[in-house]
Amino acid sequence: MIVIMRTNATPEQISTVCTRIEDEGLGTSVSQGVNKAVIGLIGKRPPGMMERVEVLPGVEMVIPVDKPYKFAARGSGGGDTHIRVGNVTIGSNEIAVIGGPCSVESEAQITATAEAVKAAGGHILRGGAFKPRTSPYSFQGMGGEGLELLRTAANATGLPLITEVMEPGRVPLVAEYVDILQIGTRNMHNFPLLQAVGNTDKPVLLKRGMAATIEDLLMSAEYIMAAGNMRVILCERGIRTFETATRNTLDLSAIPILKEQSHLPVIIDPSHATGMWELVKPMSLAAVAAGADGVMIEVHPNPELALSDGPQSVTPDRFFDIMAAIRKVAAAVGREVPAATAEMEAAAT
Amino acid sequence: MIVIMRTNATPEQISTVCTRIEDEGLGTSVSQGVNKAVIGLIGKRPPGMMERVEVLPGVEMVIPVDKPYKFAARGSGGGDTHIRVGNVTIGSNEIAVIGGPCSVESEAQITATAEAVKAAGGHILRGGAFKPRTSPYSFQGMGGEGLELLRTAANATGLPLITEVMEPGRVPLVAEYVDILQIGTRNMHNFPLLQAVGNTDKPVLLKRGMAATIEDLLMSAEYIMAAGNMRVILCERGIRTFETATRNTLDLSAIPILKEQSHLPVIIDPSHATGMWELVKPMSLAAVAAGADGVMIEVHPNPELALSDGPQSVTPDRFFDIMAAIRKVAAAVGREVPAATAEMEAAAT
Amino acid sequence: MIVIMRTNATPEQISTVCTRIEDEGLGTSVSQGVNKAVIGLIGKRPPGMMERVEVLPGVEMVIPVDKPYKFAARGSGGGDTHIRVGNVTIGSNEIAVIGGPCSVESEAQITATAEAVKAAGGHILRGGAFKPRTSPYSFQGMGGEGLELLRTAANATGLPLITEVMEPGRVPLVAEYVDILQIGTRNMHNFPLLQAVGNTDKPVLLKRGMAATIEDLLMSAEYIMAAGNMRVILCERGIRTFETATRNTLDLSAIPILKEQSHLPVIIDPSHATGMWELVKPMSLAAVAAGADGVMIEVHPNPELALSDGPQSVTPDRFFDIMAAIRKVAAAVGREVPAATAEMEAAAT
Amino acid sequence: MIVIMRTNATPEQISTVCTRIEDEGLGTSVSQGVNKAVIGLIGKRPPGMMERVEVLPGVEMVIPVDKPYKFAARGSGGGDTHIRVGNVTIGSNEIAVIGGPCSVESEAQITATAEAVKAAGGHILRGGAFKPRTSPYSFQGMGGEGLELLRTAANATGLPLITEVMEPGRVPLVAEYVDILQIGTRNMHNFPLLQAVGNTDKPVLLKRGMAATIEDLLMSAEYIMAAGNMRVILCERGIRTFETATRNTLDLSAIPILKEQSHLPVIIDPSHATGMWELVKPMSLAAVAAGADGVMIEVHPNPELALSDGPQSVTPDRFFDIMAAIRKVAAAVGREVPAATAEMEAAAT
Repeated sequence: MIVIMRTNATPEQISTVCTRIEDEGLGTSVSQGVNKAVIGLIGKRPPGMMERVEVLPGVEMVIPVDKPYKFAARGSGGGDTHIRVGNVTIGSNEIAVIGGPCSVESEAQITATAEAVKAAGGHILRGGAFKPRTSPYSFQGMGGEGLELLRTAANATGLPLITEVMEPGRVPLVAEYVDILQIGTRNMHNFPLLQAVGNTDKPVLLKRGMAATIEDLLMSAEYIMAAGNMRVILCERGIRTFETATRNTLDLSAIPILKEQSHLPVIIDPSHATGMWELVKPMSLAAVAAGADGVMIEVHPNPELALSDGPQSVTPDRFFDIMAAIRKVAAAVGREVPAATAEMEAAAT
Repeated sequence: MIVIMRTNATPEQISTVCTRIEDEGLGTSVSQGVNKAVIGLIGKRPPGMMERVEVLPGVEMVIPVDKPYKFAARGSGGGDTHIRVGNVTIGSNEIAVIGGPCSVESEAQITATAEAVKAAGGHILRGGAFKPRTSPYSFQGMGGEGLELLRTAANATGLPLITEVMEPGRVPLVAEYVDILQIGTRNMHNFPLLQAVGNTDKPVLLKRGMAATIEDLLMSAEYIMAAGNMRVILCERGIRTFETATRNTLDLSAIPILKEQSHLPVIIDPSHATGMWELVKPMSLAAVAAGADGVMIEVHPNPELALSDGPQSVTPDRFFDIMAAIRKVAAAVGREVPAATAEMEAAAT
Repeated sequence: MIVIMRTNATPEQISTVCTRIEDEGLGTSVSQGVNKAVIGLIGKRPPGMMERVEVLPGVEMVIPVDKPYKFAARGSGGGDTHIRVGNVTIGSNEIAVIGGPCSVESEAQITATAEAVKAAGGHILRGGAFKPRTSPYSFQGMGGEGLELLRTAANATGLPLITEVMEPGRVPLVAEYVDILQIGTRNMHNFPLLQAVGNTDKPVLLKRGMAATIEDLLMSAEYIMAAGNMRVILCERGIRTFETATRNTLDLSAIPILKEQSHLPVIIDPSHATGMWELVKPMSLAAVAAGADGVMIEVHPNPELALSDGPQSVTPDRFFDIMAAIRKVAAAVGREVPAATAEMEAAAT
Repeated sequence: MIVIMRTNATPEQISTVCTRIEDEGLGTSVSQGVNKAVIGLIGKRPPGMMERVEVLPGVEMVIPVDKPYKFAARGSGGGDTHIRVGNVTIGSNEIAVIGGPCSVESEAQITATAEAVKAAGGHILRGGAFKPRTSPYSFQGMGGEGLELLRTAANATGLPLITEVMEPGRVPLVAEYVDILQIGTRNMHNFPLLQAVGNTDKPVLLKRGMAATIEDLLMSAEYIMAAGNMRVILCERGIRTFETATRNTLDLSAIPILKEQSHLPVIIDPSHATGMWELVKPMSLAAVAAGADGVMIEVHPNPELALSDGPQSVTPDRFFDIMAAIRKVAAAVGREVPAATAEMEAAAT
């Protein structure tokens, strides 16, 4: 931590800052520049220290030097975190593709979609049972019944299952049904929920909040990890900007930045980021080219009949085409796309 | 709802859109322009209809005409919602001032602050017991014990109490202790929590999310109201923008916009918006001049010792000065600032 | 300037950074923390030094300690800059009100508006002759003829005149006609234009760019001042954010921040910030309450016939009402609103 | 154009709107919905009509139906615009790579860079002679001498040359030296400059403004095209958002959106978008995968000695590596990367 004093700070003010820091058992080092004094803290900064010093008279700015997260940070030795689900190892050299509808609507719909996802080579089935909707009058998901249908479709195809959980009290129930728990963008700062999924043994896909910086995202991952669950998958899904041509602005630069700062896998959700199915293919390919560990794509057998997010869902045919294109770009950047399931892999060999 | 077709849309595509709408029991009206056809929906648009039409071939854009909220909308007859707590009527011609620390830290701290708030003329005591902190390693609040201390300080001063609740499961407990429940900015889209506070009979102060539009805020108010609780207070507390000189950008234009679109009271939080105590006074005065129904200000007896948010907290002396200035500006725009409590009012007359 | 080294930086890398800085004749001071070394520069940082050090191996971050502007910065002795035009001293305890149409459209229009502005107590006449329009097909202003009409109306009323100049080549012409030169939001980073107005002896009202930080704005002021023209007036007119309810988001926190960092006057333009005439009054009052030195308001005798910006223009009647309200709020915060002209002042006494 | 009336609009107000439109020789069509009336305009909307109607009493909103640009819009027949420079056709199936330093600093520097760009397979040489710098104290470029050095290096290598022009008065001079004129991000709304380059016969690379929407960018292209110059290349270079981990947020979704709405070529500038050389490779590959027609990359023989933008410049070795990776990804998406020059192409065959 570094403290920059104002130009006109008095020696007494500088001394007060030093005393305040030393009172907590830490060392200080003062550099007197031409205009300003700068005080460095020696030792490990305790929580809240920055705020406590920032209010002292004569202080202009306090700058953290260390990252505020530990478990989520890429270490010096630093291998990547690998998370094995079904036939894919997320975070390895393999590209994982997650596909499925925004919401489960019926047995027929989820079964047809799961089979289409698998047939095209998708590795993980997604689908919403509890849905966060901005309007209380919109379809809120099928709830517990939806979980049953999802599990049945996952079992029938052999694909692992991911679904969103929205409240701490429902985490145990949802964790029973799924292979990966999803935290949605609107809940990235729902700390009781982060702690609740941190207490499970299921991998967690954590979506970046619409207004969250990359550091905010890593701090939310830290919440889950500090609770004991180290299997966190980060997901960029678009941030809110002034541009209205797309629903959000997909921040693909986040991929190399996250890879540099953290050892956790990074997945891209082009469907929610753009809100338009026409953009799902180019943004999926861009994500893989930029180094993402996978993509999550909304697939619906009849987008025009979908109860939610139809405009951003691709048909099974288009999903098949996207998978083929992903394989080519993955190969071009030295990544592999494994078969959907171990059986399909065996059959292919 | 209006559907704008693409320039090259075929008559068949136009006809398909009309049929899709009419299948749900509604009427349509087609205007053929020079380049494009426009289809209007006649009747009350059902939820999800826009998305279902947006995916049809030949459709360029679907535009809603009616607001998606009902209870929160300013009606044609339209008086303002008045919420009486303690000695102030929020949403009336009176200006309400809420003051107190970010977090309760000790009995001495909250008692001293409550008395200072009351002495200066503040109407409502605020204080956090359960704190949403971006770092799992920061002080998380005193929890249940904090609630007890808050209630004691509120009772001792006769001020009503507001505190934040962060999870649905804790709503009944917190509601027992407080006069107003607060939903924080990070939970504006926590729908299970909105429903839970909607099921209580306590007024709810709902903070705008950092990346929430004004319409998003009103939709979240609608969640609470649709659950049966009509006493919602809207709170603008800064939105996230590219500017880094302040923590957030306080959007004071939201005041007249919210007043035009809704009958609900509007409160401004200049402390969290700016993150700097020096800006609390000018932004409080600006809020009152722009038509706000009140302000919420962080007050701490020793900001440099605060366990959270010290840099944005004002001392009791400064709070006293701000209250005096608020009274002058309120008078200049024809608003009143009542006494802190009925006893003080009686004593003054 | 402070250099923060990466956790794993080698002693050689630290030494290279020091040598690089010392080669330019400056001193260094190294603090070795628990995880990271921090190098401070001793002496006056030359331009480009930060970038030259940032690229060296092992460097994590370079942080400036001094502000990059000099003339625009509030000095230690620091009085405010006062700019006298007509009967008002901008930057003093007086509130200046600038009023007039977006564009000059005809002699009748500009004459009627100028008289209405003066009658209501406005101090300065505004009006556009050269207009920056986002569409090449929109009305581009009356050009030189517009300048003539503006000057005539200004002379007839005795009000000083402000108008926008858009290209360096036209600065001499426009400067002949006006009392204050205006740089529009789209030209805040038009450096040749800033230099050109810096070479005149007319005060310059500099509008903040839509995506400009407060520091960017002060750097653009610095361009004008470095060219020799110290009479710069800063103008906040809304920044671009995700919110679509208003055209831009008016950042009133910029007022106290600019006042703290600079000695230059600060004016608010609520008309362009919001794009809605209904918001001009509340935002004008908020601006004055927050400490602005004045406001700039679009006034048009017939907004529904305006060739540009009709929706954000107020009628003369509404302008009269706004002036009355501004006087009350100004008085509440200890500011004065002088008479429109010296003659009116004399007549009133 | 569609006019949505307020819920309580009177028949007189509806009638006034219709009359206002019909007075300009256009037709109207009124649809009376359950809550609101909607008026459609029949015929070609004249400039300014939206604003003139928006101010009428009872009007809630006016929505444009047609795009405000013509020349820039993808037509119904719609081939893509191809721009041939040197050995590459920008906008065709070929990927164009532009490389070179931020600023020309010396003959040795620009010659070495030009040769490195060519050797790696880059098609076009970039370099700044007149530099827009946010600080008046930073290096402002070598000016006319820089143009000479650039032209010499371009001639020596046989690469076409692109450089930025910053003011209308300098367009004729710069146009003499270059093969493509560049308009920088800070000048996207410098309308006199757009008109000046529109009057030349050189292709223009137009960078998106930091706060410009995709529609704004196309409107600025329209300015150039309306002046007669149809050879415009659009360039996405990052937009300003709340994220601070990168200098700007690169909006790659803009590629497919621009391709859908316009026939103009789209180039990506990952160097300025991110501000970090480490991100140039992944973002270049992502751009090609997403469908860009090319990339523009800052290359410097000694980034740590660069007078500007060192941190975002890649060395010749890294540029060589990026070119190799671009070739692979281009092939994966069915695009070609031609040889740097016709001679190299002939030599390779």
